[in-house]
Amino acid sequence: MRTKDDIKQEALFQATVKLVNDIGFVSSSVAKIAKEADVSPATIYVYYKNKEDLLVSTYIDIKQKFSKAVLKNFGEDLPIRDVLRNIWYSMFRYASKFPEYFKFTEQFAASPYDSLVNKEEVEKYFDPMVNLMQIGIEQKIIKDVNVDLLMAFMFYPIMGLSNARSCKNFEINDDNIETAFTMAWDAIKL
Amino acid sequence: MRTKDDIKQEALFQATVKLVNDIGFVSSSVAKIAKEADVSPATIYVYYKNKEDLLVSTYIDIKQKFSKAVLKNFGEDLPIRDVLRNIWYSMFRYASKFPEYFKFTEQFAASPYDSLVNKEEVEKYFDPMVNLMQIGIEQKIIKDVNVDLLMAFMFYPIMGLSNARSCKNFEINDDNIETAFTMAWDAIKL
Repeated sequence: MRTKDDIKQEALFQATVKLVNDIGFVSSSVAKIAKEADVSPATIYVYYKNKEDLLVSTYIDIKQKFSKAVLKNFGEDLPIRDVLRNIWYSMFRYASKFPEYFKFTEQFAASPYDSLVNKEEVEKYFDPMVNLMQIGIEQKIIKDVNVDLLMAFMFYPIMGLSNARSCKNFEINDDNIETAFTMAWDAIKL
Repeated sequence: MRTKDDIKQEALFQATVKLVNDIGFVSSSVAKIAKEADVSPATIYVYYKNKEDLLVSTYIDIKQKFSKAVLKNFGEDLPIRDVLRNIWYSMFRYASKFPEYFKFTEQFAASPYDSLVNKEEVEKYFDPMVNLMQIGIEQKIIKDVNVDLLMAFMFYPIMGLSNARSCKNFEINDDNIETAFTMAWDAIKL
């Protein structure tokens, strides 16, 4: 069961994402976020040290939610191509379902707050995928290149394509998601 | 020869990019941008209708500069793979040379100002590359898929990788740029 604390924190999370997307980081004051979340400003300081802490925590939260959704039950016993295909579909579905999270993380990553994030902590969430790539390299299924390169071809095209804003002629349907996966697989396979 | 007008407009362009990257869209007032560019606020209104117009023009300017740098003399008489390789290297070099332009466009694209851009005008700058893809499809060199998909694999990984912020373990050197191009080519070739 969700506690009262959980519910308040979730309301703060949603309010932060909404307000930052609507009016930007600078204008999103603690007072405005509290109002949007329907809690008192004092409540925010129970959970977060300050505005920076709230914004950074929201960013880390999104990364964690995303990695959990994408990497849970990904079927590690299947052939590597099938595992990556499962992850690919989960990413697309998640990105289409929560575009506001990606809008927030894009803005955040381009902002000065980004330097406050413990990058190693965030990268850890994606360790299962990095491990999978390394197994693929050892088994001579995947190209023996820098893992950042492999991840770049698995992540960036999908993020761009799932973003209706930048790809208005591209319809997200099963055929296109499958075609895109074939291309990503061709990029990384040996 | 550059006219006095050109010099003022270039100063406004640079000031807008710098200020928006440093303090964000909301705080970047016309007065502050004028001060940064060392012109009077009245001067801005000679060239631009308002703050929105200045921001949108700056965004379009960056896209135009980028497409010109990347698509000029790309060697259209060479085999398609070589032409795309030239474009790929030009993109990397440009993105590494002007990271501040990409920071601005990322932020801009995630902001409400993005809806004010005439997307068709911007897309036209990249027509030579779209035409090249279409020739490649006809010649059965490139996969017969949506051009947005082809462009996604040619653009997004490179933009992510050239961004030191998101890829701290990835060093941009000729070996890595070449490997990345091989991957992109594997993604799009038939």
